[in-house]
Amino acid sequence: MAKRAAIVGGGVIGGGWAARFLLMGWDVRLYDTGPDARRRVEHMLENARAAMPGLWDVALPEEGRLSFHDELAEAVKGADWIQESLPERLDLKREVFARIQAVCDESAVIGSSTSGFRPSDLAEGAARPGQIVVAHPFNPVYLLPLVEIVAPPETGEARLELIRRRMREIGCQPLFLRREIDAHIADRLLEAVWREALWLVSDGVADTAEIDDAIRYGFGLRWAQMGLFETYRIAGGEAGMRQFLTQFGPALKWPWSKLTDVPELTDELVETIASQSDAQSGRHSIADLERIRDANLVAILRGLKTRDWGAGRLLNAGDRRMAQGPKSLEAMALTGPLPTGARAVPLDWTDYNGHMTEHRYLQAFGDATDRFLRLIGVDEDYLAGGQSFFTAETHIRHLGEARAGARLTIDTQLLMAEGRKAQVFHRMWEDARLVATAEHMLVHVDLESRRAAAPGAKVQDCLAKIAKAHAHLPRPEGAGAAVGRKPDRGAKDKAEG
Amino acid sequence: MAKRAAIVGGGVIGGGWAARFLLMGWDVRLYDTGPDARRRVEHMLENARAAMPGLWDVALPEEGRLSFHDELAEAVKGADWIQESLPERLDLKREVFARIQAVCDESAVIGSSTSGFRPSDLAEGAARPGQIVVAHPFNPVYLLPLVEIVAPPETGEARLELIRRRMREIGCQPLFLRREIDAHIADRLLEAVWREALWLVSDGVADTAEIDDAIRYGFGLRWAQMGLFETYRIAGGEAGMRQFLTQFGPALKWPWSKLTDVPELTDELVETIASQSDAQSGRHSIADLERIRDANLVAILRGLKTRDWGAGRLLNAGDRRMAQGPKSLEAMALTGPLPTGARAVPLDWTDYNGHMTEHRYLQAFGDATDRFLRLIGVDEDYLAGGQSFFTAETHIRHLGEARAGARLTIDTQLLMAEGRKAQVFHRMWEDARLVATAEHMLVHVDLESRRAAAPGAKVQDCLAKIAKAHAHLPRPEGAGAAVGRKPDRGAKDKAEG
Repeated sequence: MAKRAAIVGGGVIGGGWAARFLLMGWDVRLYDTGPDARRRVEHMLENARAAMPGLWDVALPEEGRLSFHDELAEAVKGADWIQESLPERLDLKREVFARIQAVCDESAVIGSSTSGFRPSDLAEGAARPGQIVVAHPFNPVYLLPLVEIVAPPETGEARLELIRRRMREIGCQPLFLRREIDAHIADRLLEAVWREALWLVSDGVADTAEIDDAIRYGFGLRWAQMGLFETYRIAGGEAGMRQFLTQFGPALKWPWSKLTDVPELTDELVETIASQSDAQSGRHSIADLERIRDANLVAILRGLKTRDWGAGRLLNAGDRRMAQGPKSLEAMALTGPLPTGARAVPLDWTDYNGHMTEHRYLQAFGDATDRFLRLIGVDEDYLAGGQSFFTAETHIRHLGEARAGARLTIDTQLLMAEGRKAQVFHRMWEDARLVATAEHMLVHVDLESRRAAAPGAKVQDCLAKIAKAHAHLPRPEGAGAAVGRKPDRGAKDKAEG
Repeated sequence: MAKRAAIVGGGVIGGGWAARFLLMGWDVRLYDTGPDARRRVEHMLENARAAMPGLWDVALPEEGRLSFHDELAEAVKGADWIQESLPERLDLKREVFARIQAVCDESAVIGSSTSGFRPSDLAEGAARPGQIVVAHPFNPVYLLPLVEIVAPPETGEARLELIRRRMREIGCQPLFLRREIDAHIADRLLEAVWREALWLVSDGVADTAEIDDAIRYGFGLRWAQMGLFETYRIAGGEAGMRQFLTQFGPALKWPWSKLTDVPELTDELVETIASQSDAQSGRHSIADLERIRDANLVAILRGLKTRDWGAGRLLNAGDRRMAQGPKSLEAMALTGPLPTGARAVPLDWTDYNGHMTEHRYLQAFGDATDRFLRLIGVDEDYLAGGQSFFTAETHIRHLGEARAGARLTIDTQLLMAEGRKAQVFHRMWEDARLVATAEHMLVHVDLESRRAAAPGAKVQDCLAKIAKAHAHLPRPEGAGAAVGRKPDRGAKDKAEG
């Protein structure tokens, strides 16, 4: 049975939590008595459906069921995870926690999205203080993996382990704080920059667009992948961090910052900032900016994925964890084409019209080839042994289009396996609609010499087994064709003759 | 003749400048009397050659010539741009500027990479104060586009315009400050975060790895594309920045920051930070970290490029500016295949072995198809008119491998153009080595109905003109083949029959 989350408060943060849980297959009960909650959450969910599933290269679980509730008790009863995302008012939060703890399971986790309060503040007077933890996410919650977890001393090891597991299951990176402080970690850093930025505007040194440019054309790109200390470690050269601190430590004493004071948010300063922001971003609506931001984040995250680094490494781990279908050839029926792919079309695979671009079809087919190869024993150990298959030749037919977020499946028929060669035929489906096919000639190679060589015995056996079974399948429509020509009737015989 | 840059000081920053100028086709004279300068600069240049050219989808100019000089005068004489990247000592910089101005052209720009000094500090006592500007880049200089420009009042409009043009030419994003302050803009923001981060370590709240995670799994991803204010604008919802300031302004007064003081860099704190950094990153050498960072940045930048946003938009503008070869069919000889691509293999196109991955061949071929289509009149206006060509079918042969940074060229032969169809054959070369070929069947479509339709008259004329000329070319080896079979001798006749 699907796990269930209760989302208390359906604003930008609560809605984002709802979307993340739902798309990871959880059922979600949402409590928000505001008139706008349903519309807002559905809008976010729409954005999330386009952006989130394509982060992984495997299909996510079936989307869970979303329901809206006017009664808090109804929403939280029986939930595995209860997430509070209400306004930052301590009295309000405490009152709601009391009502939640009166009806919820003792085993449930109660997370608070608070940006600033400590768990000891939140749990004052609570029936079970150890059940309430800070679980502070970052907007957009359905894309950014970081969740700061701050637990009070009463939270036992077992519950901490459960929290870690649950966060991983929904694709998050939990960061456990060693001790509680106001504003946790990230918001401390953000607040420092925010103050300095307000001073720069207030003093007329730069406007909002210039400050944003100073970030996104420069250190923002560094921070997306390495953060602060690892970046500075490189700047220190081979002597690393000690050298850097010796070299740049003195600058801390220089007058590089006005942070000894807080700028007064006068009406005038508010107006200055708001007008500059209009000039900078006003040509896009907030809804546009959300979509632009999501597409950018998907592109950045998937970029980091190709490097298996940071947030991208986390996504790759998710692929391995969530890969569906039989893991081994022995567990598979060979009576039909083999399932070799199930995924969503990522946002950054689409053109300005929202359609999947040409080479991304081959990327998805290439992943299917990799999956097929793993099934026949060409796995990491085999590669480490210095052998692999290369693609020598490819024939793709585009039969339909696919849009961002579309769920695609791929199956694979082995047309031929002889000596160093194997010929496969992939079909890509969106539901029952055939979107594209790809025929490949694979050649087994020695990775050292980069030359053709015979596969290992186990791989040969697997290929022979599949080839024997697939010999009974009808030849797929389109196999053996050259560009612009139907396949010859005698194509198969000629190819083998 | 190539423009010339003089780089004064060959450390991490000076070496990065040298690499950027060189790879953009400038000759570079480097002045550094240190024993290690040559080795260090050549090491950086090697990294830059792998990482930088692939940021763009066109080939960069031929790399300029690099020479090392022990005499400052020899290095700077006749240079168009002189960039000083010496240690942060005002007396040293002033003395060097005096020696530079004694011999350099008056029209040359003298830029200082200083992180903190104001131009009025730098130019005190200078012969021509208006010639010396702050041009503050970010490490790695050959990848990050931001350069903060701070000019003294004496710098005239014409020179500012020249600076803007030169920076754009070498792929940088110049950010002109309205007035001088210590540490410009970016380093103010960095310094604020740096202080807060040091406090977090000093107080034992988090270690260096946790702080980096708090950045790179969360707001660092946001900042790489939108910076601070545009991100918060979204958080404010439809009411934008005014709403955000009203909602979150009060938090400025909360105890979220300890920035009212500077942490003392005691030996103990230095040791704590350095050990934590070793635990976090010590398994990678600095050289490894540099390569990892560069590959991550290339992936992020190219990701933003697919979205035509921020630093990625800048790169796309560079593509348009630097595209080589004839822009129109009229200016081209039709006696051979048409040049339709010249580019470097980007780092993020390669697998863990450093070889270009399968689908990236099709990406490069797809770009060549786009270039071919623009030549026959399928440009932005034509697309806006609701018509285009789609790829219906593709046949790729992999004949060799290509590594990151390799310069590839593509040429295109038109095999057939009839009614709604056009058949093209691309060849991909690394120098004289044929790396791959791609044959495509293109179908002209109405973008509204997504159905085949006849091309416009001008496009038909262009196709007919090329087809007539290319009919005299020999049929390319490999054209008309199906996977696993040589093309039939009569293939062409059959295709047309």
